[in-house]
Amino acid sequence: MGASYSLCSHSSTLSTHTLLHSHPKATAFSHIRQSGLPNPSFKLNPTNQIFQTHLRIMAQPSQVLPLQGGQVEVGETQEGNGTRPLLDFHGIDQELVEKIVYDALVWSSLHGLVVGDKSVQRSGKVPGVGMVHAPFALLPMPFPESHWKQACELAPIFNELVDRVSLDAKFLQDSLSRTKKSDAFTSGLLDIHSKMQEINKKEDIRLGLHRSDYMLDEQTKLLLQIEMNTISCSFPGLGCLVSDLHRSLLNHYGEFLGLDSKRVPNNPAASQFVEALAKAWTEYNNPRAVVMFVVQADERNMYDQHWLSALLKEIHNVSTLRKTLAEIDTEGELLPDGTLVVGGQAIAVVYFRAGYTPNDYPSESEWRARLLMEQSSAIKCPSISYHLAGTKKIQQELVKPNVLERFVDNKDDIAKLRKCFAGLWSLDDSDIVKDAIERPGLYVMKPQREGGGNNIYGNDVREALVRLQKEGSEADAAYILMQRIFPIVSRTLLMRNGICYKDDTVSELGIYGAYLRYMTNFWVFVSFSLYLGPGRSIKLFCWHCW
Amino acid sequence: MGASYSLCSHSSTLSTHTLLHSHPKATAFSHIRQSGLPNPSFKLNPTNQIFQTHLRIMAQPSQVLPLQGGQVEVGETQEGNGTRPLLDFHGIDQELVEKIVYDALVWSSLHGLVVGDKSVQRSGKVPGVGMVHAPFALLPMPFPESHWKQACELAPIFNELVDRVSLDAKFLQDSLSRTKKSDAFTSGLLDIHSKMQEINKKEDIRLGLHRSDYMLDEQTKLLLQIEMNTISCSFPGLGCLVSDLHRSLLNHYGEFLGLDSKRVPNNPAASQFVEALAKAWTEYNNPRAVVMFVVQADERNMYDQHWLSALLKEIHNVSTLRKTLAEIDTEGELLPDGTLVVGGQAIAVVYFRAGYTPNDYPSESEWRARLLMEQSSAIKCPSISYHLAGTKKIQQELVKPNVLERFVDNKDDIAKLRKCFAGLWSLDDSDIVKDAIERPGLYVMKPQREGGGNNIYGNDVREALVRLQKEGSEADAAYILMQRIFPIVSRTLLMRNGICYKDDTVSELGIYGAYLRYMTNFWVFVSFSLYLGPGRSIKLFCWHCW
Repeated sequence: MGASYSLCSHSSTLSTHTLLHSHPKATAFSHIRQSGLPNPSFKLNPTNQIFQTHLRIMAQPSQVLPLQGGQVEVGETQEGNGTRPLLDFHGIDQELVEKIVYDALVWSSLHGLVVGDKSVQRSGKVPGVGMVHAPFALLPMPFPESHWKQACELAPIFNELVDRVSLDAKFLQDSLSRTKKSDAFTSGLLDIHSKMQEINKKEDIRLGLHRSDYMLDEQTKLLLQIEMNTISCSFPGLGCLVSDLHRSLLNHYGEFLGLDSKRVPNNPAASQFVEALAKAWTEYNNPRAVVMFVVQADERNMYDQHWLSALLKEIHNVSTLRKTLAEIDTEGELLPDGTLVVGGQAIAVVYFRAGYTPNDYPSESEWRARLLMEQSSAIKCPSISYHLAGTKKIQQELVKPNVLERFVDNKDDIAKLRKCFAGLWSLDDSDIVKDAIERPGLYVMKPQREGGGNNIYGNDVREALVRLQKEGSEADAAYILMQRIFPIVSRTLLMRNGICYKDDTVSELGIYGAYLRYMTNFWVFVSFSLYLGPGRSIKLFCWHCW
Repeated sequence: MGASYSLCSHSSTLSTHTLLHSHPKATAFSHIRQSGLPNPSFKLNPTNQIFQTHLRIMAQPSQVLPLQGGQVEVGETQEGNGTRPLLDFHGIDQELVEKIVYDALVWSSLHGLVVGDKSVQRSGKVPGVGMVHAPFALLPMPFPESHWKQACELAPIFNELVDRVSLDAKFLQDSLSRTKKSDAFTSGLLDIHSKMQEINKKEDIRLGLHRSDYMLDEQTKLLLQIEMNTISCSFPGLGCLVSDLHRSLLNHYGEFLGLDSKRVPNNPAASQFVEALAKAWTEYNNPRAVVMFVVQADERNMYDQHWLSALLKEIHNVSTLRKTLAEIDTEGELLPDGTLVVGGQAIAVVYFRAGYTPNDYPSESEWRARLLMEQSSAIKCPSISYHLAGTKKIQQELVKPNVLERFVDNKDDIAKLRKCFAGLWSLDDSDIVKDAIERPGLYVMKPQREGGGNNIYGNDVREALVRLQKEGSEADAAYILMQRIFPIVSRTLLMRNGICYKDDTVSELGIYGAYLRYMTNFWVFVSFSLYLGPGRSIKLFCWHCW
């Protein structure tokens, strides 16, 4: 979720028999022992954000090797003055790695696998300046095909679940009532949600562009969900390119690596997110309206977004507009018929690539903009209800006994969902809190706050829980406890800023899924009953990424 | 020639009836009067290089306008404190220009229309870092279809002419004998040429990747050749992308601009240069050999080159190697059979993207490398003979009466060539020198030195000629005089470093042409006579660019 830069895949060996080269998202350790095996004292962080933190550590490699022609550095990341050997990556020849590194950097540059360079001031505002290749893992990571298929099968079920949960306003308000008191951001969202309930606002066309993230627990071989992102899922645009890059590299070097490019699955995330946006735009049925991307004022991951707007225009001839929340507050208005107009332009679909973190709401202006959009007839991706349905607190509520059954009819689907649920608990569960204080290494403490990087691990879990107990306030409602998952740790070649680093990483598998639900359009298809008949559900697709 | 950054096209109105949107290369005035009409005192420079100089002037616009979202600047370049109105570009609406500018910048970033940013130190060595969109003109320039066709028709004729001239060693040596005394660089090339003559070295497979540059003289409506580049022609890779960019922009905005995207001709320069390189590689007939790109150590235009190597690999599965002249001197060797081996790798084709300027030969090391390659059996693109055949002195010799007839049999071809010849004179023509001192505005003084930026215009011509006369040395042999061409001046929107500038420009039309001549391969096609029969000439293609 949000604009973190963990656009990575990595290679490792799994003991599973059926292997498929897939593209899990790499996360990485800030601290890791020489053994390369996980240890409860590790600072493992399963969200995107930590990868950035990690790479800050890696930005000062102690050893670098010049590549052929003196052009590319290949180095070793490490803590302190480690003396691990360079480039013993699975026994691959160093010269070969250097060639692959060079080709990968060239490929990224020619194919738009780029981000804004933080060191260049304008790179977050002006396209075309201060570009650098996106960080990525040099090679794809083997991943069990059965678990990949399992994750793909789950996508439409989770999409449907989000939709059903979003329609249960009381469930959302009740579940988040305690969180509301301790978390101002959730409170702000719930206020808008309440206002929509008061005016009985219905969203007849509902669009979700989701990403469900998983880790494969090494010991149990279970695919466990980390989180379900319902707002601002990042890297649908660039993620596809990483698949293409890996396929291209394996086409040329696969025989030397023992990897087959055909086993890198196609990743159509960008084109299919775009198809969903275009279908929603069509349903809105105003040819002069556009799709509005709600963006942060300073966005280094803008090209991930630009890929979507470029494809929308090229493939579907649908125009886009980019606006910050503050601009929408200034330039936006509602017409009497509910049409959202921003800067004189009617908006068919609002696609949020901002607004998922409290940082995006520095003043009342941004909250006014969010409310304005929610009040409008524009299709919100996501609506306030979809946004709330993706919060960690709701994820934790859904794990409770008999809750899924309120939203899902099909028993097979319920079983599939439960199978991927990790342990999730509220902090008012005193037995679990006691256990977590005793064995903090087995838990992760997650705040409601989105965007990653705020999770608590290891002994910090104990300290935080003890502190909350002493304070005795409602502050504990801002957190949930989650079972700590221990995926396999792999030695991985990571590319960042033109330099290849080797480090130990764990992987997340992110599965994109789009969901569009709408009543058959009255104005076009008059023979269909309106607002009363069952909506049609399009389970457009599901796929894996990195 | 070489790595200048004038990857530009621009729009202007010509009075010709049949207009075609084409992509002339924009050059620009450093000094221009408000009238926008050329004046003999202008510093007009018809080569690539001046565009860089020009854009340095433009880098400090006095006025900039924020774009929608405050993201892109559109400004006015000027001399002094001019107050010309902003964005009155052919009456196009400012908001529309801002949209086109933004889309153009995004398109460039996603499609690899990029160069290294000089302000980022590593950007000339490491791919994927410090990238910025290539400079380009925002919209294509209308250009008479008849003149474009004329230029395309000339390409194979010029290619054949270069080949024929290259075979006449005496003509090359005699024509350049005076230049040799005053120009150390030409002298170095001639020395290698002489050594090849001494050992009776034959090049049975000859590959030329050329670009012939033209300007359209406004008054006479004549298409006149500026120069024939036979080494290191830049922008075959990025030039195609500019055509694609313009087509994409006109697809979306053409109706508002009155421009039809279908009238932007296809520019297959990259794929067809690559096809020629691949055919040459095939003819060399060593599957383990590669194509070596001879490059400068610091190359901001590397992506133009990377496009060729990427396409060579993707389409033809031919690998490339990048080496500087210094590296080739260190790592290169000749096997007894003449095979060139660099860093342990056999070389089938040597493709020069360096070595065209004296700056590329800072020591004897680089000259040794050039000689080593020339001695080898590798196909040189270009050979030393092709390189010499492209010098300005040879261009001037070919204009003399009865010289073309030595090399071209077909009278129609001779007539076509003569029609595009501008006036060219040696400085030992005292009548012309006298006239040039009297009317310096009608002449351009060109040194042998390649790479542009060294031409002399206006009153400087007079000063230089008078100085040379006083010195009375052989130094005048390092120059030729050329008729000054006055193409139409157009107000143009130029994109550089994320900013849109408006300025007066003149255009060059560069036509790429590839030429591969070889005897039928003995080892494969034994039924053909060898070394005696006529070589086959492949006139692969011609096209226009920007």
